[in-house]
Amino acid sequence: MGVNELLKSYKSGKLGLEETLVQLKEQGIEDLGFAKIDSGRLERTGIPEVIYSAGKTKEQVQQIAERMYKTGIDILATRASEEIFQGVTQVVPGAVFNPQAKTIVYHHKTNKLTKDYIAVVAAGTSDLPVAEEAVETANFLGNKVERIYDVGVAGIHRLFSRMDLIRGARVIIVVAGMEGALPSVIGGLVDKPVIAVPTSVGYGANLGGVTALLAMLNSCAAGISVVNIDNGFGAACQAGLINKLK
Amino acid sequence: MGVNELLKSYKSGKLGLEETLVQLKEQGIEDLGFAKIDSGRLERTGIPEVIYSAGKTKEQVQQIAERMYKTGIDILATRASEEIFQGVTQVVPGAVFNPQAKTIVYHHKTNKLTKDYIAVVAAGTSDLPVAEEAVETANFLGNKVERIYDVGVAGIHRLFSRMDLIRGARVIIVVAGMEGALPSVIGGLVDKPVIAVPTSVGYGANLGGVTALLAMLNSCAAGISVVNIDNGFGAACQAGLINKLK
Amino acid sequence: MGVNELLKSYKSGKLGLEETLVQLKEQGIEDLGFAKIDSGRLERTGIPEVIYSAGKTKEQVQQIAERMYKTGIDILATRASEEIFQGVTQVVPGAVFNPQAKTIVYHHKTNKLTKDYIAVVAAGTSDLPVAEEAVETANFLGNKVERIYDVGVAGIHRLFSRMDLIRGARVIIVVAGMEGALPSVIGGLVDKPVIAVPTSVGYGANLGGVTALLAMLNSCAAGISVVNIDNGFGAACQAGLINKLK
Amino acid sequence: MGVNELLKSYKSGKLGLEETLVQLKEQGIEDLGFAKIDSGRLERTGIPEVIYSAGKTKEQVQQIAERMYKTGIDILATRASEEIFQGVTQVVPGAVFNPQAKTIVYHHKTNKLTKDYIAVVAAGTSDLPVAEEAVETANFLGNKVERIYDVGVAGIHRLFSRMDLIRGARVIIVVAGMEGALPSVIGGLVDKPVIAVPTSVGYGANLGGVTALLAMLNSCAAGISVVNIDNGFGAACQAGLINKLK
Amino acid sequence: MGVNELLKSYKSGKLGLEETLVQLKEQGIEDLGFAKIDSGRLERTGIPEVIYSAGKTKEQVQQIAERMYKTGIDILATRASEEIFQGVTQVVPGAVFNPQAKTIVYHHKTNKLTKDYIAVVAAGTSDLPVAEEAVETANFLGNKVERIYDVGVAGIHRLFSRMDLIRGARVIIVVAGMEGALPSVIGGLVDKPVIAVPTSVGYGANLGGVTALLAMLNSCAAGISVVNIDNGFGAACQAGLINKLK
Amino acid sequence: MGVNELLKSYKSGKLGLEETLVQLKEQGIEDLGFAKIDSGRLERTGIPEVIYSAGKTKEQVQQIAERMYKTGIDILATRASEEIFQGVTQVVPGAVFNPQAKTIVYHHKTNKLTKDYIAVVAAGTSDLPVAEEAVETANFLGNKVERIYDVGVAGIHRLFSRMDLIRGARVIIVVAGMEGALPSVIGGLVDKPVIAVPTSVGYGANLGGVTALLAMLNSCAAGISVVNIDNGFGAACQAGLINKLK
Amino acid sequence: MGVNELLKSYKSGKLGLEETLVQLKEQGIEDLGFAKIDSGRLERTGIPEVIYSAGKTKEQVQQIAERMYKTGIDILATRASEEIFQGVTQVVPGAVFNPQAKTIVYHHKTNKLTKDYIAVVAAGTSDLPVAEEAVETANFLGNKVERIYDVGVAGIHRLFSRMDLIRGARVIIVVAGMEGALPSVIGGLVDKPVIAVPTSVGYGANLGGVTALLAMLNSCAAGISVVNIDNGFGAACQAGLINKLK
Amino acid sequence: MGVNELLKSYKSGKLGLEETLVQLKEQGIEDLGFAKIDSGRLERTGIPEVIYSAGKTKEQVQQIAERMYKTGIDILATRASEEIFQGVTQVVPGAVFNPQAKTIVYHHKTNKLTKDYIAVVAAGTSDLPVAEEAVETANFLGNKVERIYDVGVAGIHRLFSRMDLIRGARVIIVVAGMEGALPSVIGGLVDKPVIAVPTSVGYGANLGGVTALLAMLNSCAAGISVVNIDNGFGAACQAGLINKLK
Repeated sequence: MGVNELLKSYKSGKLGLEETLVQLKEQGIEDLGFAKIDSGRLERTGIPEVIYSAGKTKEQVQQIAERMYKTGIDILATRASEEIFQGVTQVVPGAVFNPQAKTIVYHHKTNKLTKDYIAVVAAGTSDLPVAEEAVETANFLGNKVERIYDVGVAGIHRLFSRMDLIRGARVIIVVAGMEGALPSVIGGLVDKPVIAVPTSVGYGANLGGVTALLAMLNSCAAGISVVNIDNGFGAACQAGLINKLK
Repeated sequence: MGVNELLKSYKSGKLGLEETLVQLKEQGIEDLGFAKIDSGRLERTGIPEVIYSAGKTKEQVQQIAERMYKTGIDILATRASEEIFQGVTQVVPGAVFNPQAKTIVYHHKTNKLTKDYIAVVAAGTSDLPVAEEAVETANFLGNKVERIYDVGVAGIHRLFSRMDLIRGARVIIVVAGMEGALPSVIGGLVDKPVIAVPTSVGYGANLGGVTALLAMLNSCAAGISVVNIDNGFGAACQAGLINKLK
Repeated sequence: MGVNELLKSYKSGKLGLEETLVQLKEQGIEDLGFAKIDSGRLERTGIPEVIYSAGKTKEQVQQIAERMYKTGIDILATRASEEIFQGVTQVVPGAVFNPQAKTIVYHHKTNKLTKDYIAVVAAGTSDLPVAEEAVETANFLGNKVERIYDVGVAGIHRLFSRMDLIRGARVIIVVAGMEGALPSVIGGLVDKPVIAVPTSVGYGANLGGVTALLAMLNSCAAGISVVNIDNGFGAACQAGLINKLK
Repeated sequence: MGVNELLKSYKSGKLGLEETLVQLKEQGIEDLGFAKIDSGRLERTGIPEVIYSAGKTKEQVQQIAERMYKTGIDILATRASEEIFQGVTQVVPGAVFNPQAKTIVYHHKTNKLTKDYIAVVAAGTSDLPVAEEAVETANFLGNKVERIYDVGVAGIHRLFSRMDLIRGARVIIVVAGMEGALPSVIGGLVDKPVIAVPTSVGYGANLGGVTALLAMLNSCAAGISVVNIDNGFGAACQAGLINKLK
Repeated sequence: MGVNELLKSYKSGKLGLEETLVQLKEQGIEDLGFAKIDSGRLERTGIPEVIYSAGKTKEQVQQIAERMYKTGIDILATRASEEIFQGVTQVVPGAVFNPQAKTIVYHHKTNKLTKDYIAVVAAGTSDLPVAEEAVETANFLGNKVERIYDVGVAGIHRLFSRMDLIRGARVIIVVAGMEGALPSVIGGLVDKPVIAVPTSVGYGANLGGVTALLAMLNSCAAGISVVNIDNGFGAACQAGLINKLK
Repeated sequence: MGVNELLKSYKSGKLGLEETLVQLKEQGIEDLGFAKIDSGRLERTGIPEVIYSAGKTKEQVQQIAERMYKTGIDILATRASEEIFQGVTQVVPGAVFNPQAKTIVYHHKTNKLTKDYIAVVAAGTSDLPVAEEAVETANFLGNKVERIYDVGVAGIHRLFSRMDLIRGARVIIVVAGMEGALPSVIGGLVDKPVIAVPTSVGYGANLGGVTALLAMLNSCAAGISVVNIDNGFGAACQAGLINKLK
Repeated sequence: MGVNELLKSYKSGKLGLEETLVQLKEQGIEDLGFAKIDSGRLERTGIPEVIYSAGKTKEQVQQIAERMYKTGIDILATRASEEIFQGVTQVVPGAVFNPQAKTIVYHHKTNKLTKDYIAVVAAGTSDLPVAEEAVETANFLGNKVERIYDVGVAGIHRLFSRMDLIRGARVIIVVAGMEGALPSVIGGLVDKPVIAVPTSVGYGANLGGVTALLAMLNSCAAGISVVNIDNGFGAACQAGLINKLK
Repeated sequence: MGVNELLKSYKSGKLGLEETLVQLKEQGIEDLGFAKIDSGRLERTGIPEVIYSAGKTKEQVQQIAERMYKTGIDILATRASEEIFQGVTQVVPGAVFNPQAKTIVYHHKTNKLTKDYIAVVAAGTSDLPVAEEAVETANFLGNKVERIYDVGVAGIHRLFSRMDLIRGARVIIVVAGMEGALPSVIGGLVDKPVIAVPTSVGYGANLGGVTALLAMLNSCAAGISVVNIDNGFGAACQAGLINKLK
């Protein structure tokens, strides 16, 4: 019984939740000892299993990637170093590394993108690693993306000359550090959902990104929500779920 | 020139931004001295002008509401007391008060709701004022809403018996105080965007809602974003923008 | 020996610091028991003695005001309630109360204002009490002031239509609560010093104004400095010192 | 006079507290200069002396371990690196290193375990070092342990398929980082004491584990208590005291 | 089918989780509109439904209490004012109010207490409301309790003269505010689990109890766990679960 | 059309804002891929583009500096290491490194300084890197500067012997770490604007400079404003804007 | 056996600690139910039992005071309201109320003061309640006190004209709110121990006195220690112990 | 004119403060460029100039030490590494290094100690570096010291067997990390001033020593004051001033 059928049986009452879950689990989760691949996650949450490389060794990421590669699962590894990529590329020929985003991506088939796009807006050049993580994640999840970079509020004319592209998106990710003001300005000019990503860019009273986080949570523009500091991945996950709504 | 024409002229280059904005302002903003009604906001951001009653006197809210009533603008007042409602109802016959949500609502015509619905999920009975503010706001913005209340994680069976209704929504608002765990549990079971609203419910180390806020920002489930503490209004604004995407 | 002569003697070495200070003190400080009037402060710091009414009784403020009135000293009382004003107006006929600013002002002669002006910019209507405190203080110190209100970043077109007036100022005070983004936007558009005043306006994660304060300290625009939360008085003092530089 | 007899004499009044303590001290505490071995601690608190390796040199841990080995005291060293283990194994043949838990264990006789078990539940793979420290400590103190790993709330079906094992424990240790939600979910499903251990796993707004700590302290499930961040050792000590109650 | 049978059917696989839960819910949860009585909670978690009166009106508590009274459920209301008690006593004759603990208790039959006791130790007189809440809760749950009050560390001789009674307990609750040092001292002298309850007693740098909370989490004595500030109820719940272990 | 003419056309209405901004952008911003040089910033804000070296590689700074050098733009790089300077000096002969300030400066023509000076006052020797950053920045912006160092409040006689030089300045920058008391003392003795710069100098409860920052924001002397921790650059920017007011 | 004899017997070994303590307790502690009078505290710590009135009812303070009065114990009640004083004065004729300090004092015999004095220095008029609490406490403990008030750092000349009196003290208490700079300035000018008392005076970023507390802990002057916010009582206790050293 | 004569002339009025200070400065302060030696500090504050090595290079400390050595000034360097000591010992033969305290000491003549002693009490072995810094500083300032180590509250019998030595001191320094409870226990047992030193020992919720700091500030024992985290030097300075009072 495939995952869809399982879920249908569950909805129709043919299967109790626990039995359904046990079967789902048998199908979806493979155990590598140090990390389980939950290949059923895509069915359940719309977001596939992803390798979070921070705190994993080169060998561990390599092994997980190889297993996913052989099982036919598309691969996204985040927070990956150049060294980790060297390990992955040996077992996953064709894997692509984005050193700024620190992501490794591999698709078994050509990745088919949505027609509607997600706008990823970044305030300053130091915010680009987080913005690029969002871009790579959104692409991996099948979303077309438009980058609008270096449009921080201290030179607001740069933002205005890009507003048409921003307004045309289905959902907008706004990445900013320091005082985190950009989402408020954009939120007041668009009628699309804005997901704000605070970054840890700054020093002193930026408190490792907490200042930008707090500022975004207190935005005077409605229609804005916020994710964790430097969490480009999470913002792209939510944006992807929104962009795929029919 | 109507607002739509104005914006088209601006897009086509016939009008510079500043001229456009001046004209928009003349059309949209009326000055009551202590508070301007920005009736053009709906065009710009998809969210109409709303009366935030906290810190305003009964007379001030009454006056704004009366003006909106006479100008044919629909009315939503948030954080309104019973006393404020008494003032409004004198000048806006038919205004409806939700004492738990602390909202006052008036529509000139019947409010036509979307077919797709927003699920508003609340953990405990103490979270209901914030959940109801979200419900009223979402309704006001033209969204159908389904309430799923009292399904906190300390009795998780209550949640499971309501999962079908939650999964059927287009976007899910999850309201929780104390440890703020509910959005993570739901986020791991659905493939729709989840907007988490921390509440100030609790005492001691809940730090006025900061604990729930931090917990939600650190959710291990992807696809979740967060708004300010007790901000049911903001969550509904973003959910409404998402629900209206075609 | 008048204060000017005293200071000249001190500079020339005729008087040691301590002797100078003792004499200054004898001239400048009058003791009311619960509060000393330091009428020499104007000579020393460019800012005269001011009555901070918070935490003082109606009778105490009345007594201080009366003494200043009789001694020929101009009066500014900040954070004064309507009740305190009733007390002062009995003994200082002609005293003027600004209920929004919570200030009481009295000048013995017509207050002569500078030709150059200080711009006082405020984001939202809730920020007006702090902005008005800045306006009244700046006026009291002899500065011409221009008010630019309700130009928050969530509707940035409102700001642009006022930029000429802002750019024409000699020094700019920007008052904002919530995410505190306005000073960054203005700082990127002007070549004048900007003094940012965070307000305690907001709720939840605004942490009583700390969020706006932190955001302003982390502004990506250079040329901005910050004062304490809700400290319209302090901002106006510094702006006044700047505006009077020749 | 043995420790038991000493304590009896003290209880019966034959010995004053101070004399008792002096004698206990003479028996129990051996001085190595940089660290005293308090071998009487087991009698007093039910928990024997343990080597906390953090901040100690390889040589210091080696010397303490050797002394305990020769005196016939069982050895548990926590927060020990591979390098420290190399030093210990030279003088304590048969010492066992758990590299994930960072513990070194040596028993002179076979460690006899309780029949009732402690369940050690962990949310994610990154939480395993802390969970393993709890497991090793509980084992060292003579407790049978059952591991239930990788059952975080974002895939709650994984938890449900393990609930029987969890419910069967006498006391439950729940280890989780990020939003720290797992103890609340488990606490609502069991009638056994739950000890929650927050971990420093996460980034940004997790604030080094403070977020998980605060969330656990605010759990909506009663019957839960909390220990310091990453303190698997402390949780196991309390669980051991509970498990040994008759 | 009774609750026990339901759970057995579930364990044997006769019933799926969801069906089981729906049936449990039908049996256990009664809806009063503003608050549901979850009478099945006792079966599930060993702790019955309790009325948390804070934030509820006199009428609401009265109505819940009356329903429980008529259904034959024993009643514990916490954080109840004198006024709330007046309401309850009208509909629950024989209800007992502890004004210091702010608890209302009613048992349909005589409450049979355990033979082993829980020691409730309090540092200062200001900590007594929290200690008494723990005492009343523990009693309500069927535990014998011994009070050891006013034994703060600033007069440590008072503690020593009570150590026998403390050591004789099966589990020890230690309540302290200010610097929260008492649990560490006791934890170093007993071989029983210690549950520490920080209180909000103090001023200035006590930060509303956060200081005592942090201190207790950092106790140098092992075997101590901590609950939320002022949470005497939660401490008693866990102590009760421990005391009833066979 | 030059920048001045552009701005005049904009003011006269000949050009809309957006067109003006596009043209300004074309003139002022050159794209190096990883960092744009906004050479129009000087016109707009009175402060030219500056290289913030932290987080940039030696090669990146070298490349930006070379481009600016060749375009005839004066160069200021802040937070530059000795290694970065080695890179710059290869392509910008004559560039000057201040190792304490960590600045690199190059002027194409002799830098003409103002007649009025900015006083840069520093409390302790550990504060000098921040003070020197302020000095170099102020000099780069064309301001004469007087250094008054090592005049911390713990030896206040050192301050008094330098007061004449401080009083003679047009604007005063005060740099201090630890308790941050120096700005208050100076603010009470001068009639010029004081810009306070907290430094991260100290340990323990200095919280990385937050203590000095908070202290300065709470100064009992009026006429003081504050910039971010260690932000000597920002203080000098504002001081420069003030010093150039006519 | 008197207290002195008891302590001698204890030192000589005639009595064990516990027996000594029990006897001490019997002599020294009288139980009023809600509050015990520990009249033995003076012997043990040099500081007698004092009534902390905050959180006690008028009747409770009255009852304790009456008991102390009748037993011949001198009375100091801190944080007492006018209303509490009215209660005490009925049963303790001759009790003296200091409304600013909020203290009630009664001595059975004339209070004999030391020859050496404690200097109590206060920065501003708002700090006087805390300073006066220190004065009254120090007097009550038998210390001569000199007041030096209104010498805040914003008008440092006021401090210099009082330095002789400050330098002549045996120990100096310095009370200050806002930026808390005064102890550093004084600490750098005297060779006597300085005890700093932060007050909660201020607003916004003063964080209820935490700013002054942190600043004082980071004083650049050695020889300074700090007590809790607004704790004039504690500062006077330590100063009294110091002043009585022979 | 010597320092004493200078001060007498100042007191008698022969010299104004500024002149006095200029002369004092000429006598006492020698400039090494990067650090001034304020040899007059001893006269003014009772505490001589000390080298704080943190943040200084080996060469800088060496140069300062050499200059002091040649000028006949006794040397104390704190926070010095082994490497820094190697530099100093080359130019100051006979300098003594305490590697645990990280201090370097040199006396030109035999250091004559007081008869009364300061007790330095430490809770755990990890607190010894801070305790030893206090010991070395107190010795350097001429005070006899008694060490009482490893007497933490988790094994309180260890403390009791040392109480006589602690009680015999003139002033007591108590060093503790983690929950910082030791000063409260000691403060309740002695009639001498207690100076509490929090250390950064611990992990997780110890927040780098802030927990111990807060706990000590909230001590329920009167007569305790607190210095900055890890500030053994500062505690010894104040203790030295107290111990030398006649």
